[in-house]
Amino acid sequence: MATIDLNADLGEGFGRWSLGDDDAMLQLVSSANVACGFHAGDPLTLRRTVRAAAAAGVTVGAQVGYRDLAGFGRRFIDVDPDELTAEVLYQIGALDALCRSVGTSVRYVKPHGALYNTIVHHEGQARAVVDAVSAWSPDCPLLGLPGSKVLQFAADAGLRAVPEAFADRAYTPEGTLLSRSLPGAVLSDPEVVAARVLRMVVDSEIVAVDGSVLPLQAASVCVHGDSPGAVAMATAVRERLAQNGVTVGGFVT
Amino acid sequence: MATIDLNADLGEGFGRWSLGDDDAMLQLVSSANVACGFHAGDPLTLRRTVRAAAAAGVTVGAQVGYRDLAGFGRRFIDVDPDELTAEVLYQIGALDALCRSVGTSVRYVKPHGALYNTIVHHEGQARAVVDAVSAWSPDCPLLGLPGSKVLQFAADAGLRAVPEAFADRAYTPEGTLLSRSLPGAVLSDPEVVAARVLRMVVDSEIVAVDGSVLPLQAASVCVHGDSPGAVAMATAVRERLAQNGVTVGGFVT
Amino acid sequence: MATIDLNADLGEGFGRWSLGDDDAMLQLVSSANVACGFHAGDPLTLRRTVRAAAAAGVTVGAQVGYRDLAGFGRRFIDVDPDELTAEVLYQIGALDALCRSVGTSVRYVKPHGALYNTIVHHEGQARAVVDAVSAWSPDCPLLGLPGSKVLQFAADAGLRAVPEAFADRAYTPEGTLLSRSLPGAVLSDPEVVAARVLRMVVDSEIVAVDGSVLPLQAASVCVHGDSPGAVAMATAVRERLAQNGVTVGGFVT
Amino acid sequence: MATIDLNADLGEGFGRWSLGDDDAMLQLVSSANVACGFHAGDPLTLRRTVRAAAAAGVTVGAQVGYRDLAGFGRRFIDVDPDELTAEVLYQIGALDALCRSVGTSVRYVKPHGALYNTIVHHEGQARAVVDAVSAWSPDCPLLGLPGSKVLQFAADAGLRAVPEAFADRAYTPEGTLLSRSLPGAVLSDPEVVAARVLRMVVDSEIVAVDGSVLPLQAASVCVHGDSPGAVAMATAVRERLAQNGVTVGGFVT
Repeated sequence: MATIDLNADLGEGFGRWSLGDDDAMLQLVSSANVACGFHAGDPLTLRRTVRAAAAAGVTVGAQVGYRDLAGFGRRFIDVDPDELTAEVLYQIGALDALCRSVGTSVRYVKPHGALYNTIVHHEGQARAVVDAVSAWSPDCPLLGLPGSKVLQFAADAGLRAVPEAFADRAYTPEGTLLSRSLPGAVLSDPEVVAARVLRMVVDSEIVAVDGSVLPLQAASVCVHGDSPGAVAMATAVRERLAQNGVTVGGFVT
Repeated sequence: MATIDLNADLGEGFGRWSLGDDDAMLQLVSSANVACGFHAGDPLTLRRTVRAAAAAGVTVGAQVGYRDLAGFGRRFIDVDPDELTAEVLYQIGALDALCRSVGTSVRYVKPHGALYNTIVHHEGQARAVVDAVSAWSPDCPLLGLPGSKVLQFAADAGLRAVPEAFADRAYTPEGTLLSRSLPGAVLSDPEVVAARVLRMVVDSEIVAVDGSVLPLQAASVCVHGDSPGAVAMATAVRERLAQNGVTVGGFVT
Repeated sequence: MATIDLNADLGEGFGRWSLGDDDAMLQLVSSANVACGFHAGDPLTLRRTVRAAAAAGVTVGAQVGYRDLAGFGRRFIDVDPDELTAEVLYQIGALDALCRSVGTSVRYVKPHGALYNTIVHHEGQARAVVDAVSAWSPDCPLLGLPGSKVLQFAADAGLRAVPEAFADRAYTPEGTLLSRSLPGAVLSDPEVVAARVLRMVVDSEIVAVDGSVLPLQAASVCVHGDSPGAVAMATAVRERLAQNGVTVGGFVT
Repeated sequence: MATIDLNADLGEGFGRWSLGDDDAMLQLVSSANVACGFHAGDPLTLRRTVRAAAAAGVTVGAQVGYRDLAGFGRRFIDVDPDELTAEVLYQIGALDALCRSVGTSVRYVKPHGALYNTIVHHEGQARAVVDAVSAWSPDCPLLGLPGSKVLQFAADAGLRAVPEAFADRAYTPEGTLLSRSLPGAVLSDPEVVAARVLRMVVDSEIVAVDGSVLPLQAASVCVHGDSPGAVAMATAVRERLAQNGVTVGGFVT
């Protein structure tokens, strides 16, 4: 019987501001990409999130990002690699301390937003992230886009490079994500999304925006946690998988 | 032969802005209170500082503070204890990850600035800091003012509560520090300071601003790192101690 | 026929995070206390808010606060008066530039959150705020709690000191607001609140938590904009006033 | 007799951290590019700086930058134009309020660091800056690199587009600044720099890194204020100009 990991971004509030329904999402996913304070996530929110994740049996990953609360980490920043390495280490360690205080730990790293997209191709920043994760722990998996520089460098460095797919994002014929600034970049119909995820998992393929069918090997599928219909979508995905005999389970063992 | 620990605040630059001569101070002290990013210290600066501390054989402590770059952590903020606990954990973990990447680790915690002074008497915030350190590691010593609530709560919680003295600060007859906003609060004559430190270490006493002599048990003496004459003062202290057969060495074993 | 000003806090999102239904509130109030970026409000959000306020014919005031995004300006910070004066000027000027670019301007100042409460009694910070408003414009009204130091100093300085009441907050017998940390501090029943506001406006009195009836002169009534039932509550207040022949209109002429 | 404007970046400290010798520079330049809080400059520092500028008879300009204290505004950020326009307006207004409280005002705008360099070629961000300055005041001059998109768009919009030269920066054969990351990008010999400035002013030309001589029309020359030898360099420039009968005076009349 097939098993797939579902991951979602959680802990993305900041102080007075909340975002998404973390409690509901924790019942639906197997891995939680928890913000680390640079693009979102004050320490108290983060501690509550990782405590809830631990209680729900959900694996915690560090969702590291650019230092950019105002832009929610969604804008490229031309950070020097040395500085980026230090910033990623800082974020992982901060979240891990909060995790350990509630009986869990950081079990993987997934870059966020513009950093995630940048290190698909930007070699300097990709190496900087890999350097940080390697320095943190050679046993720490790194989640990224299939075919990306960051996964290539991670594998070269002896890290576990984990390719992931996106449930609700449109793909270009080259296998990258269609930019959020373009129409149709984000899918919103739960049944359409659920069918895509099933095809990813069972057939290892995805239909791109031009109709072409791409091979896609993914060890984890990202379902977004902060869109209006996030919980309904994740529920539909989860049900469709169950109906087809696919179990949801973490990729970290 | 007597031994005393000398500690100083280091890593207190931020991005383009530097502060103090960390390299020189690392040759003079046995413990470095390294900023953690909330009152000062960007991750790259912090990583360089802890690498240099490790190279110099200086013990690293986490100098946790209020989230207040604009105020350098020197202004009281009425933070809720739950939030403060999470913030302190976040800071310790962040610095520790940077430390571990260069072969050292956070070996003690010393609160900074207004937080340090507040938890002399503010029970809610004092407990919050102790809770964070206890959650981080029951073996982690906590540095504070003799007679303070925070050291009392730390001892009650089974932590090692380490009392410290200040080389260049005037004391009230009650044994607290004279506020920086009052004249004479900070001493600047290296020879006067050196003589005070020797008396602290050898005779366990200090002369208060009113001339009274106070008993003072200190396991560590703080020499400030960011004043104009900081290096000269620390050098004078170190020489005076050596001339009198007192060795400088870390309080963490 | 009586007229009363209704004011609400708007523009309190930040980047990815939104708060409250500003568009709905702008149809219900006559004055908008718009955040200025220190406790909330990124420049783009602020510009959109003041543009919408101008379009709705709502007067814009600058809601100045402590520099504390993480605490939403709700925590006392022990800022030096000189610095606070500069910070308040900075915030007013920033918002005014955004206002002028869309055809309106800052017409009054209302301090936010912990700053608002602090300057009820803290003389140094109260004078600092008055100094800033006076330096900005001697014609700029300042909104505050009746009987507060800040309104007294404002009047002494020749500013228009505007007393306000709170629709949904419980009052102590001394006429101050019951702390948000105490039960019953915030009222949530729209009809109860509407009745209280009518009594404030028509009879100039309010019932305190101990049942005593206090005289209360208010030129403006604050209805909160970010609570879950904010729009329903403001609607109920507005309807009750209309049913009793009270017009809603700005206090700035 | 020829006259030239000398401008320098001032007010670039932040809280505890100071940068450069503003008082000395104010005796040497005719225009002060004062930070606005986004890349540097807390409100109290800014207010002191513009008060000192007013006392010295130096014209104040708003040095607007990216929201990036950690990077001192020296890193490209991919900000949306709408947001950038609002951010620039916010910064100008904030500084102007501080200026007006001490008897001066913002008389021109000069973008800082990475924003300055980006809008040499980035059309979206260049237009965003021009839109902000136009909205602020159609009479406000905008300082930029000769041949840049931002100066072209400023002129198209009816603004006064003011070309400037850099005293201590190496030029490429194309007339742009050699990147700070390349060797030789910043000149440090006061006499060499003074000779270059004299040639810029008298002969309207500059020698590029490859030895070619470029025509250069500049209404203002930037002398940096925060390098170790900044005061000595500006003094040498000023003396060389005086010896050759060139007066220093503001470009804003």
